[in-house]
Amino acid sequence: MRSWDKRDDMIVHEQDPYNAEPRPQTLAGALLTPVDTFYSRNHGPIPTLDPAAWSLRVDGLVERELEFSLLELQRRFDQQTLTATLQCAGNRRAGLMAVQDIPGEDPWGSAATSTAVWTGVRLADVLRTAGVGEGAGHVAFAAPDVSELADPAQAYGASIGLRKALAPEVLLAWAMNGEPLPVVHGAPLRVVVPGWIGARSVKWLQRITVQQAPSANWFQATAYHLLPADADPDGELPASALSLSSVALNSDILRPADGATLPAGPTEITGYAFAGDDREVARVDVSIDGGGSWVQADLVVAPSRWAWRHWRAVVELVAGPVTVTARAWDSAAALQPQLPEHVWNPKGYVNNSWPSIALTVTGDGNAPTPPR
Amino acid sequence: MRSWDKRDDMIVHEQDPYNAEPRPQTLAGALLTPVDTFYSRNHGPIPTLDPAAWSLRVDGLVERELEFSLLELQRRFDQQTLTATLQCAGNRRAGLMAVQDIPGEDPWGSAATSTAVWTGVRLADVLRTAGVGEGAGHVAFAAPDVSELADPAQAYGASIGLRKALAPEVLLAWAMNGEPLPVVHGAPLRVVVPGWIGARSVKWLQRITVQQAPSANWFQATAYHLLPADADPDGELPASALSLSSVALNSDILRPADGATLPAGPTEITGYAFAGDDREVARVDVSIDGGGSWVQADLVVAPSRWAWRHWRAVVELVAGPVTVTARAWDSAAALQPQLPEHVWNPKGYVNNSWPSIALTVTGDGNAPTPPR
Repeated sequence: MRSWDKRDDMIVHEQDPYNAEPRPQTLAGALLTPVDTFYSRNHGPIPTLDPAAWSLRVDGLVERELEFSLLELQRRFDQQTLTATLQCAGNRRAGLMAVQDIPGEDPWGSAATSTAVWTGVRLADVLRTAGVGEGAGHVAFAAPDVSELADPAQAYGASIGLRKALAPEVLLAWAMNGEPLPVVHGAPLRVVVPGWIGARSVKWLQRITVQQAPSANWFQATAYHLLPADADPDGELPASALSLSSVALNSDILRPADGATLPAGPTEITGYAFAGDDREVARVDVSIDGGGSWVQADLVVAPSRWAWRHWRAVVELVAGPVTVTARAWDSAAALQPQLPEHVWNPKGYVNNSWPSIALTVTGDGNAPTPPR
Repeated sequence: MRSWDKRDDMIVHEQDPYNAEPRPQTLAGALLTPVDTFYSRNHGPIPTLDPAAWSLRVDGLVERELEFSLLELQRRFDQQTLTATLQCAGNRRAGLMAVQDIPGEDPWGSAATSTAVWTGVRLADVLRTAGVGEGAGHVAFAAPDVSELADPAQAYGASIGLRKALAPEVLLAWAMNGEPLPVVHGAPLRVVVPGWIGARSVKWLQRITVQQAPSANWFQATAYHLLPADADPDGELPASALSLSSVALNSDILRPADGATLPAGPTEITGYAFAGDDREVARVDVSIDGGGSWVQADLVVAPSRWAWRHWRAVVELVAGPVTVTARAWDSAAALQPQLPEHVWNPKGYVNNSWPSIALTVTGDGNAPTPPR
């Protein structure tokens, strides 16, 4: 039995392809997500590559084509370590599916996002060694995991713009939280594109191609686009389709659990917020009166510029049904949109509406109880 | 009489200090705003500097202090021309004041934003010539216009982070739409910080100081902060106060005018959208049924990466009262927040809620009428 098949602390949406996220309470516990509870998003069977036979090829619009074994890559370039959050474009899709069903897609909850310490080399260093040629605009990544979801079926691929590819934060990583990258997370080598949707952080990387245009791979050219609500998800891409790259400002509540019953009194609410790429989380508000009033949460120190912010606020709960709502602001003073109805789209991407949980509060709200 | 005192095509909020914006219909007409209708935001009396006596000083954490006449600046550095939109942090404040009054602030409408072609030199080139010293983190700008609004009264000043200061788009400009900079827009030299709130594009520039910390000037350290809704605008800044820099995604409807009476039939709706700094406008939606359904507007070609997008959509209006709503999405799939109530704040900054106009539509909606 494969190690990722049976996990009590994961919500497994699908076994084949394997798609699973940790329980919200697991995320709440730590700024870094343990390797074995890091969310896992796959589009095909997980390939097991022989590290001894594996090599990375660099080609396309380069001055010299290159090929590296893992050892060669590790020896040739400066080793980098960076803490970064990855977030699936489908994170919090369940909130959209509560508005209107999205057939064929997994109902990701709060935790299609996780944070790890990544060790590897800069993609920029590899590209500079290859020499980026004239006309280069994009850097494509190819992997061997063949997906039947694509039309036609094909191995997974993606690309990022050259500007991001040359940014110092983009890594080719072989280690995660100080351990060798597990097979399920892309061993022997994966891309880590901090601040961009997880779909661009290609696992089981085999080939890097510098090219003029974005990748023609189905997962770049067709999937992972935000469509208008009334577009046909299986039709031709409309002109207004938005190819997803930077993560949009998002947040969620991790504790207490949605639906929990709690005694009245001061209660700690915790969660995460994440601002993609070029933005930072500036403020998180929490309301227990449906948005009539808000308190500002304390932001926990970020483990890095490229990681989420955890936050906490203590609110005074009184007996009765209570809805707790949160919302984040980024460094440009942009606020999350309010309702999942506002952002509903046919493929269920980027649900960054204000998160809320429903609580049942018992007991006498006037009786002092110790903080939890 | 000063030339900016009497203008029929401007909405003048105050004469002293002079604060005025063009009518929305003026903005709608052109991707570039004519110099004499470009919005004007001032905090004190407009200074008239003698160009012959004027000089620019560069000091602080630099390897060598510099001083330039305008001619020396023009001769020494490569001339740059860039089209950029400026947008006041108070743009669309009137929409917030409709929710709850904001005493002492001007009720800016749709047009505290304008776009011009700027000609000057790169701030980065000047800073590199001065040599940025160790410990530098911010670049401060000082001007001579003394403002009684500040506490204590002081000349206007601001600063931007060193990273932005070294970006190629930040100019020291002496010309606007190919003409010498008018006095009211900062002659002989002003800063243009594309993608950031207008308050950082300091007019009548006299001194550039490289320093470790942001400017201590009242307009940087105290004003131009986003506060939580329940904060005291005259009290000490709360920990959650957000110093404004990048412009948040925003949009407005420019035509038809709010409150207009129109015959039924296909009707063109036009407006602008602007995504600050690191983002681009990706999509604009228009609804005539209160957000129940949306059509995607056509985006007019942007005059530059640093300029607004104008947009247009043709909708079929039928007789009765109609509310037209718009909303923009940026390149990270972030959407504007819906309601002014969501973004209301005590100083009235960054109203980037969905714009709407109320129309009275007359006649038989079934009778064909020519498009307007």
